[in-house]
Amino acid sequence: MSDLLIDWDRAARTGVPEAVYCEAKTPDQITRILAQTVERGTRMLFTRLDPGTQAQIDPKGLLDYDPISHTGVYGGSVNLTDCGAAVVSAGTSDAKVVGEAKRTLEFMGVGAPTRQDVGVAGLWRVIDAAKDLQDRRVIIAVAGFEAALFSVLAGLVAAPVIAVPTSVGSGVAQNGQTALGSALASCAPGVVTVNIDNGFGAACAALKMLNAGGHGPAQMGEMP
Amino acid sequence: MSDLLIDWDRAARTGVPEAVYCEAKTPDQITRILAQTVERGTRMLFTRLDPGTQAQIDPKGLLDYDPISHTGVYGGSVNLTDCGAAVVSAGTSDAKVVGEAKRTLEFMGVGAPTRQDVGVAGLWRVIDAAKDLQDRRVIIAVAGFEAALFSVLAGLVAAPVIAVPTSVGSGVAQNGQTALGSALASCAPGVVTVNIDNGFGAACAALKMLNAGGHGPAQMGEMP
Amino acid sequence: MSDLLIDWDRAARTGVPEAVYCEAKTPDQITRILAQTVERGTRMLFTRLDPGTQAQIDPKGLLDYDPISHTGVYGGSVNLTDCGAAVVSAGTSDAKVVGEAKRTLEFMGVGAPTRQDVGVAGLWRVIDAAKDLQDRRVIIAVAGFEAALFSVLAGLVAAPVIAVPTSVGSGVAQNGQTALGSALASCAPGVVTVNIDNGFGAACAALKMLNAGGHGPAQMGEMP
Amino acid sequence: MSDLLIDWDRAARTGVPEAVYCEAKTPDQITRILAQTVERGTRMLFTRLDPGTQAQIDPKGLLDYDPISHTGVYGGSVNLTDCGAAVVSAGTSDAKVVGEAKRTLEFMGVGAPTRQDVGVAGLWRVIDAAKDLQDRRVIIAVAGFEAALFSVLAGLVAAPVIAVPTSVGSGVAQNGQTALGSALASCAPGVVTVNIDNGFGAACAALKMLNAGGHGPAQMGEMP
Amino acid sequence: MSDLLIDWDRAARTGVPEAVYCEAKTPDQITRILAQTVERGTRMLFTRLDPGTQAQIDPKGLLDYDPISHTGVYGGSVNLTDCGAAVVSAGTSDAKVVGEAKRTLEFMGVGAPTRQDVGVAGLWRVIDAAKDLQDRRVIIAVAGFEAALFSVLAGLVAAPVIAVPTSVGSGVAQNGQTALGSALASCAPGVVTVNIDNGFGAACAALKMLNAGGHGPAQMGEMP
Amino acid sequence: MSDLLIDWDRAARTGVPEAVYCEAKTPDQITRILAQTVERGTRMLFTRLDPGTQAQIDPKGLLDYDPISHTGVYGGSVNLTDCGAAVVSAGTSDAKVVGEAKRTLEFMGVGAPTRQDVGVAGLWRVIDAAKDLQDRRVIIAVAGFEAALFSVLAGLVAAPVIAVPTSVGSGVAQNGQTALGSALASCAPGVVTVNIDNGFGAACAALKMLNAGGHGPAQMGEMP
Amino acid sequence: MSDLLIDWDRAARTGVPEAVYCEAKTPDQITRILAQTVERGTRMLFTRLDPGTQAQIDPKGLLDYDPISHTGVYGGSVNLTDCGAAVVSAGTSDAKVVGEAKRTLEFMGVGAPTRQDVGVAGLWRVIDAAKDLQDRRVIIAVAGFEAALFSVLAGLVAAPVIAVPTSVGSGVAQNGQTALGSALASCAPGVVTVNIDNGFGAACAALKMLNAGGHGPAQMGEMP
Amino acid sequence: MSDLLIDWDRAARTGVPEAVYCEAKTPDQITRILAQTVERGTRMLFTRLDPGTQAQIDPKGLLDYDPISHTGVYGGSVNLTDCGAAVVSAGTSDAKVVGEAKRTLEFMGVGAPTRQDVGVAGLWRVIDAAKDLQDRRVIIAVAGFEAALFSVLAGLVAAPVIAVPTSVGSGVAQNGQTALGSALASCAPGVVTVNIDNGFGAACAALKMLNAGGHGPAQMGEMP
Repeated sequence: MSDLLIDWDRAARTGVPEAVYCEAKTPDQITRILAQTVERGTRMLFTRLDPGTQAQIDPKGLLDYDPISHTGVYGGSVNLTDCGAAVVSAGTSDAKVVGEAKRTLEFMGVGAPTRQDVGVAGLWRVIDAAKDLQDRRVIIAVAGFEAALFSVLAGLVAAPVIAVPTSVGSGVAQNGQTALGSALASCAPGVVTVNIDNGFGAACAALKMLNAGGHGPAQMGEMP
Repeated sequence: MSDLLIDWDRAARTGVPEAVYCEAKTPDQITRILAQTVERGTRMLFTRLDPGTQAQIDPKGLLDYDPISHTGVYGGSVNLTDCGAAVVSAGTSDAKVVGEAKRTLEFMGVGAPTRQDVGVAGLWRVIDAAKDLQDRRVIIAVAGFEAALFSVLAGLVAAPVIAVPTSVGSGVAQNGQTALGSALASCAPGVVTVNIDNGFGAACAALKMLNAGGHGPAQMGEMP
Repeated sequence: MSDLLIDWDRAARTGVPEAVYCEAKTPDQITRILAQTVERGTRMLFTRLDPGTQAQIDPKGLLDYDPISHTGVYGGSVNLTDCGAAVVSAGTSDAKVVGEAKRTLEFMGVGAPTRQDVGVAGLWRVIDAAKDLQDRRVIIAVAGFEAALFSVLAGLVAAPVIAVPTSVGSGVAQNGQTALGSALASCAPGVVTVNIDNGFGAACAALKMLNAGGHGPAQMGEMP
Repeated sequence: MSDLLIDWDRAARTGVPEAVYCEAKTPDQITRILAQTVERGTRMLFTRLDPGTQAQIDPKGLLDYDPISHTGVYGGSVNLTDCGAAVVSAGTSDAKVVGEAKRTLEFMGVGAPTRQDVGVAGLWRVIDAAKDLQDRRVIIAVAGFEAALFSVLAGLVAAPVIAVPTSVGSGVAQNGQTALGSALASCAPGVVTVNIDNGFGAACAALKMLNAGGHGPAQMGEMP
Repeated sequence: MSDLLIDWDRAARTGVPEAVYCEAKTPDQITRILAQTVERGTRMLFTRLDPGTQAQIDPKGLLDYDPISHTGVYGGSVNLTDCGAAVVSAGTSDAKVVGEAKRTLEFMGVGAPTRQDVGVAGLWRVIDAAKDLQDRRVIIAVAGFEAALFSVLAGLVAAPVIAVPTSVGSGVAQNGQTALGSALASCAPGVVTVNIDNGFGAACAALKMLNAGGHGPAQMGEMP
Repeated sequence: MSDLLIDWDRAARTGVPEAVYCEAKTPDQITRILAQTVERGTRMLFTRLDPGTQAQIDPKGLLDYDPISHTGVYGGSVNLTDCGAAVVSAGTSDAKVVGEAKRTLEFMGVGAPTRQDVGVAGLWRVIDAAKDLQDRRVIIAVAGFEAALFSVLAGLVAAPVIAVPTSVGSGVAQNGQTALGSALASCAPGVVTVNIDNGFGAACAALKMLNAGGHGPAQMGEMP
Repeated sequence: MSDLLIDWDRAARTGVPEAVYCEAKTPDQITRILAQTVERGTRMLFTRLDPGTQAQIDPKGLLDYDPISHTGVYGGSVNLTDCGAAVVSAGTSDAKVVGEAKRTLEFMGVGAPTRQDVGVAGLWRVIDAAKDLQDRRVIIAVAGFEAALFSVLAGLVAAPVIAVPTSVGSGVAQNGQTALGSALASCAPGVVTVNIDNGFGAACAALKMLNAGGHGPAQMGEMP
Repeated sequence: MSDLLIDWDRAARTGVPEAVYCEAKTPDQITRILAQTVERGTRMLFTRLDPGTQAQIDPKGLLDYDPISHTGVYGGSVNLTDCGAAVVSAGTSDAKVVGEAKRTLEFMGVGAPTRQDVGVAGLWRVIDAAKDLQDRRVIIAVAGFEAALFSVLAGLVAAPVIAVPTSVGSGVAQNGQTALGSALASCAPGVVTVNIDNGFGAACAALKMLNAGGHGPAQMGEMP
């Protein structure tokens, strides 16, 4: 088991706990990590865990598993605090990434209102959403295709916008490269970007911002 | 002079006249083309003609030359008709491409109102411009960086939008690849795209659309 | 159901109705959109709907489904008007994209003659087709591989050519990047481009052009 | 002058004022913007203004110009507050981008300590710097080449790290693409990214984070 | 069988024996190579041999097969010598590539200690591992995502570091391009790189270095 | 059946007959083309026809089908002439592309000796093969990975070398881009290139060269 | 002078003589190569030799220098034979590459008729040229932008077409990548490709084809 | 001067001393580093220092400067030991990178024989050179274009080959991407790669290999 070296103290050092990224791991590796977690009695988040693998590595149903966001939580849920975060998305197809961001926030004790399907092709939807977001401290925006949402939104609100480009789209938008370019080249200052489809990373960054401003959740990651 | 074979009948065949793309031609080649044009007595548009080369190939000032758009016209101007076209741009930096589109339209007898500097970071500018564009038959939109203008505009107007991505921008936006992706991946249906910085091509396409709908200028390209 | 926010007024605002792009949506999401549509009693076009998903989300056969173009229509067909559009393709392999364009036009009330398999390797086929297309108001051209069709055709007709590069091809042509480059870099002015395989977008753009010229179909999208 | 449409109310709406990106503008355009600014009596930041152009557009020396960061400020300086930001860089060669970030922060009233030349090849430098950064609310990290600094730093501090990949480097690192990939793919959660060499954008994002947490500077952008 | 022309003398000429790269070969081709090998009585390493194909081409179980690294050895094992090599990896997900490197070294008689899961996000893990690696003659480092491990490690040890970027990662890191760039652009001198996921090549290079220094294993590749 | 427009006169016009590229066609489309072919009584080559599709479209076994090269011939074989062509490949894994080239040559009446598995890592194999190829009129060389074979071979023989880069390889060589670059950038003059994996195109080019020199096969493509 | 190792026997071995590619060489290096050439009394071709460098390395005017194609010949001209080659180009801007191909052919004793400016946008020009090219043994076709010329021409003639994509074009066509893709993905079989702008390589390949068919020039490269 | 933080102990820690990469530094920054170096009395290597900058920062001629390799040494030369390294290059145009590698080795006390201009197009040159290299402990191979030298050489010698792809080449080879791919995808095991044009990095890696084997130079970097 010498290939597993979990960074248990990450939360103490950086404010965000380690999580298990399952996509490139074998079921056997995930099973051993889960066993270590159970043994230690620590809460743990598993991301990019597809339903087939979840069934295989968690036959007893130890995880609180969500099939849309492909996330599983060990150790139960904690009380949620509205710390000023929000999640906004351009289309129905972005629901998976939205879910990963929301579930990560919730794992860390942060509750966040969500506005989905507010793409700029129907501009009234963005303008409408922006009104509700005026008092937010940080906004996670999720969009694929040309991801014009990032620039439009950042021009309408005061909060920093964490852009999560998604791999939703076809042709030149395939794999999210166009949405990523759109986020990075945004003409609206104050947009910051995370990797394509990286809802988890956006949630961690949001938490770090909230913590740094003194608005983070009171407790996080303790076994309830 | 066997290397010059101008397609004099293009306007009769396709509705748009041949023009001379100077960027990759030597001054000597452009000089000979100008001589042929003068000899034949035909109006002609020269594009991508930088000021230094213009001075070299046109010492007598035969061309009506515009240093911003790098275009020169031989044979004088024609009366302009407002056929329902318009040109819109996101930023001051797009002025060169806007100029190439406008000068091409004017060479062909089409006058078109212009709205510059209406980038989405200040969304009120786009919304304001869109109101004035409700009755247009075709809109040429010019934008660099993330080019969110294309999608926002196309969601607000009925006219087809010809997107001209520009090479304005830095980092990932350099050379216009991000703006091009943004145009092609637009979530707003009805956006069509031409090559990066191709104001000339956008104007030709607009003219073809106007001609096809029976709204093209009455006369075009004849020596006045 | 807060993640579904359909832009019902898009047709009134832009001349083209919203459609449902199914590729990145889960069957559950599509099912809910279909239910909303039925409830509202509006006609609706579903694109990128593969046969397996269609069987799953439409067990009662509410959709008029076409397995070649992967499109489904809810709400029945409308009378078709020949408004001056046409669809041309380079090879048999482009049939799926041709179908998406045609079915979208037809959903919006536009009938359009089609010429398939007129690739330039047998040049007589293009020349032959071009003769029949002299009176068209807009031509949708569909081609993969090196897509020389776009330039050849645009040099022979007066109508604007909407190029749809397809992902048909192998090696460097894989994914349609070569065909896309060919469309954008065309030496024949008047070619405009949409995203790779985007037959739907081409049809929407064609409709906008026809509408703008006053030649659009009389009625569109009403429940018959 | 119809091509200049400055978004004067941006600061009120989003917390960061509009600035003038000079790279793609002609000297004539910048001259006119400066004139408008002077007339209106507003403070203004000019970025990507190379020394040659500065000399040309500002013969009277109205700007407080810094030749390293290529930035110029109109309207004088304001008092600086240490709001909890910091700037860190990997190498001497990143000084230009560091300067753009710092000057932007200072334009907006934020003073920030700086640690330069702490690249990971001499790891003790990063560890040493990290100790001094434990209490910061936001850190702007600037690095080229493989930019390992972003991940190492984010694993050692609690503050959110805004990564600014620079175009410093040769071979595969040319133009900053490798550093950008390194920032986006960072295994350390909480890294967010801005465009290559975009010190201005990083500073704006930092200000938005500080503002959102209630730690922004008291006054910003008023004429002193 | 004229399509099989094995370079049996490679070990004598270059110090590393030929191996069979199975990924692009048909089961029939691999079967014939195995038969030739058995007939000749030579030890042989088969790489990129997935479990399904192994079962098909080796029904009698002639190979010592390892399903994690997808490697099979014909001809039995040899005694292992610790010649000064070591293998280090950033994450659990890199185990497949680590295995290919280790199995290749062992096939050639080289035993090497391994340190897995020492990614830089928990920097103490790298620093800890570096202490144990001070006396090594060559280190194979395996990492995906942004692969900051290569630079950090090479700044802490005297041995040459052979970087093996892996295809582990999502978004921009997909396919290992970011990790590859990170290895090549490393600011720490003395890093050399092999192809993405190429554990085999790294092991061969390590052996060549050990041989060249006079520290290679005494015997290699003979039938035991 | 209006979507099938076969260029029956291609052989008369260009010296090479039309063939059917099956990869992007539906089984139904291929079935109809085969039916047309049978009806007309013409020989026809089908390429990129995988075994599953072949079974589906040719239940009666009308085609002479080769599962390695994925080619099928209708209309029987013709006598083969050795016109001076040869096929050489770097590795066993290139057999599929070698087969496509050979089968295409044979369909057109050209017999060609083949040398496989002569990669440069064992240089003696190339030198050995080059001796046998001194009198050839055209050589088709097939290689993946870094494809050094093209340059080495072209420096040793007088015949033109048609390079066929293959998609064989991993990491940066995936999809054949590295081999393609190697062919195009070859320092040995006289190398010409076709698309990745395009054995068919290489054979057609070889035939055109032989025909042009007056050495083509006497008869080609007639029903025997 | 140990860094100069000219392959004097290349013509004997491969049919094409070594030439000196000057682009990446210093004037001092070219000067020494010229001195060696003069001393040995061999004819030699210098390519990619810009006018400034030529003036510097050849103050005595030993070379027959052509400023359009950037080629210089040492050792005088030889009698030209029309062996069946021809050179065709799409636009005036391709003249430099056309010149490099022609001068290389002439250096080797091959005279070839040329047709320039026959781009497909005016299709009649290609059709007209194709008539004159029916009896050619090999055609070098030179084109930039989308390079549709390659496919159209190859569908009309029996000779093999050597495509030389040029770096002429803007936007996506910049650097010749689109034209290169167009050549490789051509739907017209029998097109072979050389590197972007590589007129020299195309001429060498053409000579090898002519030689292989027994139609090469009687003498080549001897001092007249 | 807080932006200069030189890693003076690097040699003690890793076996290779820090050097100053001048390409992205301003003359002022280099001047200050040189002053620090002189003050401290340490030998120092300056790389990527073009002649113009050298003249500017070193008016007193403190550096031993080489205009071909763009390297300067402060502190005098040390005695050279032949430790078993060698440098080989494919073409005259690679001389700059060869020089950077050699000068770096010599700065560190390693003398190394050099073989230039042994490209594979004249294969006898490589075979000839390989004979002389049989006893080497490490070989630095430098090549641009398709860089077939790497694979051919690695198949003929026992020493590890450090491939340095160069940016020499045109078209697809521009910037060295093709040569880099060729090195990484080499079919000859035992090739390791450094960044494009990185002669310095290759020399550092070679020194680390020699040191690790116990064959490094006795003294290095001390002031003589």
